[in-house]
Amino acid sequence: MNQSSEPCGPAVVDALFGDVALRRDLLHKLNSQTKPPGSLGLLEQVGLRLGLLQRTLLPKVERTRVCVFAGSHGIANEGVSAYPSEVTGQMVLNFLSGGAAVCVLARAAGASLHVVDVGVDANFPESVFERPGFFPRRVKCGTSSFVDMPAMSFEECDAALEAGREQARLAVRDGVDALAIGEMGIGNTTSAAALSAALLEVDPVDVVGRGTGVDDAGLLRKLEAIRAALSLHKTALSGADAARHWLASVGGFEIAAMVGCILEAARLRLAIVVDGFIATASALVALRMEPESLETCFFAHESSEHGHALVLNALKQKPLLKLEMRLGEASGATLVLPLLRAAALLMCEMATFESAKISGAVAS
Amino acid sequence: MNQSSEPCGPAVVDALFGDVALRRDLLHKLNSQTKPPGSLGLLEQVGLRLGLLQRTLLPKVERTRVCVFAGSHGIANEGVSAYPSEVTGQMVLNFLSGGAAVCVLARAAGASLHVVDVGVDANFPESVFERPGFFPRRVKCGTSSFVDMPAMSFEECDAALEAGREQARLAVRDGVDALAIGEMGIGNTTSAAALSAALLEVDPVDVVGRGTGVDDAGLLRKLEAIRAALSLHKTALSGADAARHWLASVGGFEIAAMVGCILEAARLRLAIVVDGFIATASALVALRMEPESLETCFFAHESSEHGHALVLNALKQKPLLKLEMRLGEASGATLVLPLLRAAALLMCEMATFESAKISGAVAS
Repeated sequence: MNQSSEPCGPAVVDALFGDVALRRDLLHKLNSQTKPPGSLGLLEQVGLRLGLLQRTLLPKVERTRVCVFAGSHGIANEGVSAYPSEVTGQMVLNFLSGGAAVCVLARAAGASLHVVDVGVDANFPESVFERPGFFPRRVKCGTSSFVDMPAMSFEECDAALEAGREQARLAVRDGVDALAIGEMGIGNTTSAAALSAALLEVDPVDVVGRGTGVDDAGLLRKLEAIRAALSLHKTALSGADAARHWLASVGGFEIAAMVGCILEAARLRLAIVVDGFIATASALVALRMEPESLETCFFAHESSEHGHALVLNALKQKPLLKLEMRLGEASGATLVLPLLRAAALLMCEMATFESAKISGAVAS
Repeated sequence: MNQSSEPCGPAVVDALFGDVALRRDLLHKLNSQTKPPGSLGLLEQVGLRLGLLQRTLLPKVERTRVCVFAGSHGIANEGVSAYPSEVTGQMVLNFLSGGAAVCVLARAAGASLHVVDVGVDANFPESVFERPGFFPRRVKCGTSSFVDMPAMSFEECDAALEAGREQARLAVRDGVDALAIGEMGIGNTTSAAALSAALLEVDPVDVVGRGTGVDDAGLLRKLEAIRAALSLHKTALSGADAARHWLASVGGFEIAAMVGCILEAARLRLAIVVDGFIATASALVALRMEPESLETCFFAHESSEHGHALVLNALKQKPLLKLEMRLGEASGATLVLPLLRAAALLMCEMATFESAKISGAVAS
């Protein structure tokens, strides 16, 4: 019954999860509760990780928030997506009007919703800027097409990272216990696939997929664009420098923002729920920039976007759901918030064998 | 939505999902929403099924309930379990005190909790009978050991079925939109494995597992007990008659109650969320008794109990979660209630491409 004795994440960092005494106490608590040891499976691992992250035997996931980062992509003009680039801005308005899937899911989960324009190529009406939960942090009207030049400069990349860091700080300021992050950006599965191929050194064909539903011809263009970009931006850099290089070269503003959000959340010990393929690519970049940052991440689901399973596997992460979703916009991460809340409550509220006067296991 | 006046029987239940026009309208609605078609994966299928079941384009899962059926097992005295039989009664008290995992999960899901004593071998204090949500429907103080004789008589089986039917009716009366069902009964994975092996005609070794955590010696005893029972209760019956025969011969009172609950729920078009291995074995029996009854069932999760995946596969069912849980007591089914609620809300509240003025897919 030792399968529950280790948290999901790789125990890379002592800074976050290295509290040996607390880990022992949390495990003791889990194993004294009225259930066969380990029988709540991944929920026990989530409860343990939340306790370690929040440094307590009584973790809580009461206040939750969803943050959708949006950005336009120069690469979207290369015919790599099933939808036109203008959908990115249109969907931002849909997020703010409450009609998008993530809005419905956030309401269902009792979570607040933030929408951050990190670099959308659209003219929004003035009224949008008064909407609560909208954060206009536009670095630029979309990235450059990375088959021609770097998607963004390092300065632009830093600005996008900061837009994400800000959301982690705001979440902590507002008493948020878990922050679900996701994205909107037509063309961004191309960007995420390029990042994954570059950082994991795998063939692009292993991580390129249909995104919102591109056809065979588009899929080929997508693959060719990624191959061209990997060749154009080839580098001898390694480690954090390589991660930063590739993020600026083939990333997106919303991807960089999610990286910044994860990095800052790790510093603040804020639980982040990572959405699908693109958010997971951001986590990969964050991991390469600061290895311990992954410990703050809970991976929500394995999407049906080709490549997601490979990246999750490379990160040694087991996601909580696998519902054949491939929408993005933090929809999968938002669905997981009630599971985190349940895991925290189980940690806090279950009776023990002793308190409930229940007989223990018998010798065979 | 009171359909209790409808006549019972397969002819009516056959109409559950046969509404071609409604199915077309639901699919049209799903595909006009602001997301790539199908990108919400299994959630779309759940939404569609809820719409068909509730006969509406606006399905709802607002009021939810969890029902735990408990029963003691004669077979538990054959050394097949890691825990002594008295734990069944002790856990019923724990359910009523609010300290069990399912209590915490039901609170987290905003669901009410019913606990039904269908045949627990315990003397409960008088105060228990005043607890709200407790249903003393004890058929007998536990089943007989099915290595010696049938677990129960047909009359006893019918009484247990009725205890389950009652809960489906009560749920509909109380306006419950989805009912999560599960069980407590030390020894009942042995019973569920015997039922599964008998009805699916597979070798017991393919469906026998460690339950609450029995050791190797116990596992062997469990396997031998099942082999002995299959031989003792061998029958030439088939179809519904065979299902009834095996249910009475090797089932349990709580298992029979779940069968009754599913059968009645199908008649009343009430969504049932089926928990783990034992509840799924009940669904298998229900299916054999009335083939259409499965259409009312949403399978919550694939537990880590050996055999569950096989039975789910035989039923051609894809569960929503796979969290390595193996606790029973409706814990997995309860976790799924928020997912059903989310699926229903998505069906009702999402904007359409047209209403949100969002561009459609482009030709390649």
